Amino acid sequence: MNAEHERETRIFVWPVRVYYEDTDSGGVVYYANYLKFMERARTEWLRHCGIEQDELIQQHDVIFAVRAVQADYLRPARFNDLLAVTAELSVLGRASLCFTQHVLRPGAASSNLAGFITPTVYQSMLADNENRLCMGQIKIACLKASTLRPCSIPAHLITEITRVG
Amino acid sequence: MNAEHERETRIFVWPVRVYYEDTDSGGVVYYANYLKFMERARTEWLRHCGIEQDELIQQHDVIFAVRAVQADYLRPARFNDLLAVTAELSVLGRASLCFTQHVLRPGAASSNLAGFITPTVYQSMLADNENRLCMGQIKIACLKASTLRPCSIPAHLITEITRVG
Amino acid sequence: MNAEHERETRIFVWPVRVYYEDTDSGGVVYYANYLKFMERARTEWLRHCGIEQDELIQQHDVIFAVRAVQADYLRPARFNDLLAVTAELSVLGRASLCFTQHVLRPGAASSNLAGFITPTVYQSMLADNENRLCMGQIKIACLKASTLRPCSIPAHLITEITRVG
Amino acid sequence: MNAEHERETRIFVWPVRVYYEDTDSGGVVYYANYLKFMERARTEWLRHCGIEQDELIQQHDVIFAVRAVQADYLRPARFNDLLAVTAELSVLGRASLCFTQHVLRPGAASSNLAGFITPTVYQSMLADNENRLCMGQIKIACLKASTLRPCSIPAHLITEITRVG
Repeated sequence: MNAEHERETRIFVWPVRVYYEDTDSGGVVYYANYLKFMERARTEWLRHCGIEQDELIQQHDVIFAVRAVQADYLRPARFNDLLAVTAELSVLGRASLCFTQHVLRPGAASSNLAGFITPTVYQSMLADNENRLCMGQIKIACLKASTLRPCSIPAHLITEITRVG
Repeated sequence: MNAEHERETRIFVWPVRVYYEDTDSGGVVYYANYLKFMERARTEWLRHCGIEQDELIQQHDVIFAVRAVQADYLRPARFNDLLAVTAELSVLGRASLCFTQHVLRPGAASSNLAGFITPTVYQSMLADNENRLCMGQIKIACLKASTLRPCSIPAHLITEITRVG
Repeated sequence: MNAEHERETRIFVWPVRVYYEDTDSGGVVYYANYLKFMERARTEWLRHCGIEQDELIQQHDVIFAVRAVQADYLRPARFNDLLAVTAELSVLGRASLCFTQHVLRPGAASSNLAGFITPTVYQSMLADNENRLCMGQIKIACLKASTLRPCSIPAHLITEITRVG
Repeated sequence: MNAEHERETRIFVWPVRVYYEDTDSGGVVYYANYLKFMERARTEWLRHCGIEQDELIQQHDVIFAVRAVQADYLRPARFNDLLAVTAELSVLGRASLCFTQHVLRPGAASSNLAGFITPTVYQSMLADNENRLCMGQIKIACLKASTLRPCSIPAHLITEITRVG
C-alpha cells in the first residue's frame, strides 16, 4: 500500500511585514530570508492544525527538519512591504511532508488574510503575476528529537493534519 | 552560436566557522544560514577572480542577484564546527552564472584551505560521505544595479572569470 | 530654549512570535535578535503614528538610524514563545528620539495586545517580574537619507508623534 | 577579598568581512549585526585562550551568556568592508566577564591582523577616529548549561584566561 496520500489540501496564508532586518544593501529582501518567511507560515499552519512544536519535542520527542529546498526568485520584496506567505501541503508521507509555498505582495483585498483560505481566493492571489515574488518547494522530514534520526509522523499528528490542513 | 560555455572549472573553497548566531534551538545550523555560507564562498571566489562587488555596483552599475536555489540537507552542522564551503562555476552564461556548492566538515588535512584547489583535493573532500552536510545549485543573474533589469555580464568580468575561476 | 520636550508618553505594544530563526543552540533567543524585536515594535509604533518609513525616505529624504543601545538580559525567551514588545518614547529631541523598551512574556490576558495601551495595563505587564525578559534604552538619530548626515526631525513628524505617540 | 581582579589585559583582534547578509536597505550594516561581529571576536579570543565552547558545555556543563550590552554606533560599516573587531577583557569576575570591544575599519597595515596585538598597535588603530565604527561594553555571565543558573567560572578557565588573555 502507498504510504503517501494524494490529497486535496486547503491553502494556508500568513502575513509577513518586511523590516530592515530582512533587507540587504541591494535594497531588497535578502535571498535567504524568504526561507525564514516560509518557515513562519509552516509553523503557523501547524499551529492552526492544533500542533505546537515545542510540545512535540517535549512530549513526543519529535522534531521537523528541512531536507530539501527549491526556491525561485521572481521579483524582489522591499523594505516595509506587507507580504502574504502561503503554505500548501502537497504530499503527506509516512515520515515526511512536502509543501508548495508562495511569497506574494497581496492587493489590499487580501493583505490582512491569516489562516486557511478557499481555492478561489488562492487562485486570485496567484493570478496577479506582478506580485508573485518567490515560489518554493520544501521537503520536511520527521525526526526523533533526541537522536535526529528519521521516524514516522505520530498518528495523532496525521489525524490532525488530515482533518484540518 | 552558443552563449553558454561548457568549461573545465577550478574549484574554490572557503572556510566558515559556525557561531551561535548560525545555530537554532534544534542544536544545529539553521537551514537558511547555509545559503549565507554559500554566498560568502561565492563572494570570495569573485574576489579571487579580482572582482570586488562594491566596485561593480559603483563603477559598472552591475549587481548579481540569486534567481534560483536548490539545496539538499544531508547532515547537520553544529555550533563551533569549522566548515569548508566550495564553489564551482558550472555554467557561465551571457547574463547568468550557475554554481554547484558543497558545505563540508573537512578533515584536519583540509580544514584551513582557502582559495582554489585541485580536482584531486576536491574529490577527496567529497569522497568522505559522512562529512557532506549540504549541497546546493545556485543560479545567479546579472542585473543593472540602477534598474534591477537583467543585463549581459560585462566583457572584462567574463575575461577575468574565464582566466581565473 | 530647550529642544527636548518632557512628555507624558503613551505606551505601545507589539506581539512577536519566536521562531527557530530567532533561537540559538543554547536553546534560547539569540541575544542580538532582541534588537530586531525592539525595532519591529518601533516600526509599528511609527506606523500607528501614521508614519511609513519608506515614504519618509522617498518623499522627505529622511531616515532613522540607531545611535546607541543599552540592553539588559534578564530571562531567556524560548522557541515558540509569544512575546510582547513595548515601546515608550522617553525623549523627543530636535534631531533624535529615545525609547525605553521591554520584551515580556505576557500572560494570556495581554498576549494579543497590539497598539497603544493604558498606563494601567502597562504597569500590570511590568509588575510580573518573572516574565520581564529584556529591557532596552535605544537612541535614534534623524538623518538625511542621501548623505547620512544628522538633520532635524521634519515638523509634520513632530506633530504626528506628539499627537499620537 | 575581592573576587574581581584589576588586570593589564592583552588586546585581541579578529577580522570580519561584511557580506550582503550583514547589511540592510539603508546601505549599511544592520545595527544588531555588530553584536554578532563582537561575539565572533569573543569566541575566537576564547579559542586563542585554548577554550572551545562546545567542550565547555559537554565536559563541564558550562555556558556563557550575555547579561548586558552597551553599544555606541559612531560611523556605518558598508558592504564589502573588511573590519577589525577587538576584544579586551576589562573585568574577570568570579562568575562573569566584561569586555570592551571596538569595530574598526583598519588601514591596510592592520587589515589582516588576527590574534593578540600589542598596546601600541591597538592605540594606533583606535587613534584613527574616522575608522572607529562601533564601540561596545559587554557583560557575560557564566551559567550551568543544564539549568541556565549562574555559577563560578571553572578554575582551569581562570588559569587559562589569566595566562593568555
